[in-house]
Amino acid sequence: MRPTMQLTLDASGPLNEQVARALRAAMADGRLAPGSRLPSSRTLAADLAVSRNTVLLACEQLRVERLVVTRPGAGLFVAGVPARPAARRRGGPVAPQSAYAARLRALGPVTLAAGPTPHRYDLQYGEPLLNPPLAAAWGAALATAAAHTDTRYAHAQGLPELREAVCGHLARWRGVVAHPDDVVIVSGAQQALALAARVLLDAGDGVAVEDPHYQMAHQALEAHGARITSVRTDTLGIVVPDIPVESRLIHVTPAHQFPSGVTMSPSRRAALLRHAAAHGAWVFEDDCDGELGHGERPVPALRAADRHDRVVHVGSFSKTMFPSLRLGYMVCPAGLRRDFVRAKQLDDLGCPAVAQAAMAALVSRGAFDRHLRKSMAELRKRRVALLSGLARHAAGHVQVAATTAAMHVVGWLPHLDAAGAGRLLVAARARGLGLHLISPYYRTPPSHPGLLLGYAGLSPVQIAAATDLLGQCLRDAA
Amino acid sequence: MRPTMQLTLDASGPLNEQVARALRAAMADGRLAPGSRLPSSRTLAADLAVSRNTVLLACEQLRVERLVVTRPGAGLFVAGVPARPAARRRGGPVAPQSAYAARLRALGPVTLAAGPTPHRYDLQYGEPLLNPPLAAAWGAALATAAAHTDTRYAHAQGLPELREAVCGHLARWRGVVAHPDDVVIVSGAQQALALAARVLLDAGDGVAVEDPHYQMAHQALEAHGARITSVRTDTLGIVVPDIPVESRLIHVTPAHQFPSGVTMSPSRRAALLRHAAAHGAWVFEDDCDGELGHGERPVPALRAADRHDRVVHVGSFSKTMFPSLRLGYMVCPAGLRRDFVRAKQLDDLGCPAVAQAAMAALVSRGAFDRHLRKSMAELRKRRVALLSGLARHAAGHVQVAATTAAMHVVGWLPHLDAAGAGRLLVAARARGLGLHLISPYYRTPPSHPGLLLGYAGLSPVQIAAATDLLGQCLRDAA
Repeated sequence: MRPTMQLTLDASGPLNEQVARALRAAMADGRLAPGSRLPSSRTLAADLAVSRNTVLLACEQLRVERLVVTRPGAGLFVAGVPARPAARRRGGPVAPQSAYAARLRALGPVTLAAGPTPHRYDLQYGEPLLNPPLAAAWGAALATAAAHTDTRYAHAQGLPELREAVCGHLARWRGVVAHPDDVVIVSGAQQALALAARVLLDAGDGVAVEDPHYQMAHQALEAHGARITSVRTDTLGIVVPDIPVESRLIHVTPAHQFPSGVTMSPSRRAALLRHAAAHGAWVFEDDCDGELGHGERPVPALRAADRHDRVVHVGSFSKTMFPSLRLGYMVCPAGLRRDFVRAKQLDDLGCPAVAQAAMAALVSRGAFDRHLRKSMAELRKRRVALLSGLARHAAGHVQVAATTAAMHVVGWLPHLDAAGAGRLLVAARARGLGLHLISPYYRTPPSHPGLLLGYAGLSPVQIAAATDLLGQCLRDAA
Repeated sequence: MRPTMQLTLDASGPLNEQVARALRAAMADGRLAPGSRLPSSRTLAADLAVSRNTVLLACEQLRVERLVVTRPGAGLFVAGVPARPAARRRGGPVAPQSAYAARLRALGPVTLAAGPTPHRYDLQYGEPLLNPPLAAAWGAALATAAAHTDTRYAHAQGLPELREAVCGHLARWRGVVAHPDDVVIVSGAQQALALAARVLLDAGDGVAVEDPHYQMAHQALEAHGARITSVRTDTLGIVVPDIPVESRLIHVTPAHQFPSGVTMSPSRRAALLRHAAAHGAWVFEDDCDGELGHGERPVPALRAADRHDRVVHVGSFSKTMFPSLRLGYMVCPAGLRRDFVRAKQLDDLGCPAVAQAAMAALVSRGAFDRHLRKSMAELRKRRVALLSGLARHAAGHVQVAATTAAMHVVGWLPHLDAAGAGRLLVAARARGLGLHLISPYYRTPPSHPGLLLGYAGLSPVQIAAATDLLGQCLRDAA
């Protein structure tokens, strides 16, 4: 029988003392950490090929030494450490081992919503729409999928049923006609961009990125060694004439420019697609929250108008389901599909099959559509609560930008300078209100400070309270 | 309300005809595929801001045109396509867009077990140990985890509870003392290697890979542009003096060399670690099935003897749980940890949180230990069935190599040349027996043809039948 831990007897003296020494050694070097449970005497006896009685004698000895304690019904637990852990010579700092590692270390910090908020109310962008029924539905879908999903390596491109479900979803919600062969299942938009960088760009190649921008996308391209040009956006989207003609890849967020929330206009879309076709550039369409949004009329994805097959359309379930799901998809131009599939295979052999099967079931059975409709209705309520709260408590202090984004609003602060905005955040924090500046998302700083006001994670009542607090802070700041 | 699909009314003529035209257009360009279900009339009415009656009139018209059919209780389904789908000009072939893409396209085929086997009995390596209770346990663990797992972005390094559980597992099963801070949760050994290549190697850097070798690892390094030297292995493991001193990374499988199944000897391990320390090389320890194996005494991982912090220890749950799980871990040298965490974050923002929480629960509550013990007992039975079957039916024809691997055996065919071995495979296939040559795993072809005989996926009874068939084929071939 194979030992539960790497115990070896030193063959000197009585067997029970050998066993005790082996256990002490395991405690000494951390293999048996304080508080951890000892294997049962039956297990240890089998592992070490000694009698159970011998083990019991050894354990009794350790108990006398106060190294283990008995928890009735639970067994023996490590109580102490007999000696200092064996010293591994831990290597010190290491110089970057590759150009990629050097670029990694040169990257700046990121503003990424993660973990619980320290604030009573946090107007943080990126918070999921809290939805307990969804968690239950997801758990049930996973359990069902686990029972019938093939445990062998699945195709790296993704499960056929999920790729088909995604095509149906894209047709219904994004006006995109795609064939399952052109779809690659990825772990999210972040992985899609990492794959696109490797497949489409050598270090030093030119890339155009919108300004303002999504930081993790910018950093992924920086780390890859791309030569990035930040291209201005206005109220119609990216300013196409400003895109360098030598850009090999153009990263855009047409549904809702992030973080400005602007929807790219039809004329800009046409100009962008013309530019891509004319200069042989690829367009990376980050459509993460394309289904959501409160616009009067839905705007199809850029890919829907892509007549020259230059658009890599990328969607994710991070916003529509929840961020820690890590599942998304890309629709690849025909000539690139095999490269993307191969790159995905070499990177991780494909996404977890059970989660893919579960997501396919939710989408194909309509549960995902219903969830999206409910989410949008709820998000609209929260948006209304935020806008009316701002009108009531912050009128004159906060200029709300016109956006179609579903989960946040941009509020400019015309009467404050950077220092004043900084003081506002401090004052808000003191009142238990989390505020977040939009400046970190700009390469070229905006003329006024502004707030990225995420409302998806708070109920309408909480949002009302949050805007009330915001108003107090603004009046104090004034 | 946001439309279920991108339907737009053309504002000409009666509303019900406008709705019918919009639906026909959706069917024409594939947004409503034949066989797919139409949204409910209530939904369509809400979406298009028309009366439900208008929608019912439009649907009636489409039914008359035989474009939709009613399935009682299920609603309306698309029955036909009124016109050919809108033509997207699909791009033709595209030249490789990056040096990476060019290398991708130059890669050879891989032998990777995927999907159901066409054979009655398939002695295929890489098949998981079929275990229905495990699937149920995994489904239950997922459902539980889904209920309490944070839906926000988790830390890219991995959930703390899983990193802690992995450290306990490593101490118990692999003799490795690791701190959760040094552990990065990855989607498997494949991703660990992709990350290691990016963090540790520039294109053109030297890498040493064992021969024979694991193809996907070799290809990941090729695609990265590494200069690969295939280093001979013998019955003690990799031949250390053959490792070029300029190798920046050395990829080894010390627990069971793949596919030869040899366990690296203590002296070779010491020599390899000395080499790494002396020449500043990093060692990638692929320990995917280190817990399994039928050796008399367990052999700790190479990392356990690594006094100079040069070993990147990589484990995976693909073999111990099942391949489509896509979850594994790496123990990083202290000086590289931050690079690996950052690279993982930029690649995919981290692994799915629910699966991580579920795996942490299985490991920390002992269920995974029990599963491993049961698996090993079952694998031993299957191995015995294979060896006795070979002794009974193939004695003299198949030379079984001495291995400690848990899921396969290497059988050499001393009396056959390559052509004869090829005929053997064809004859076996005709009898419903899947056999697999070991030659694809060698850079330097072995002196005799050999078979990679995987037995994990077959019951002892099936294995007996398979070896009987193998014997018949061998006698025919002789």
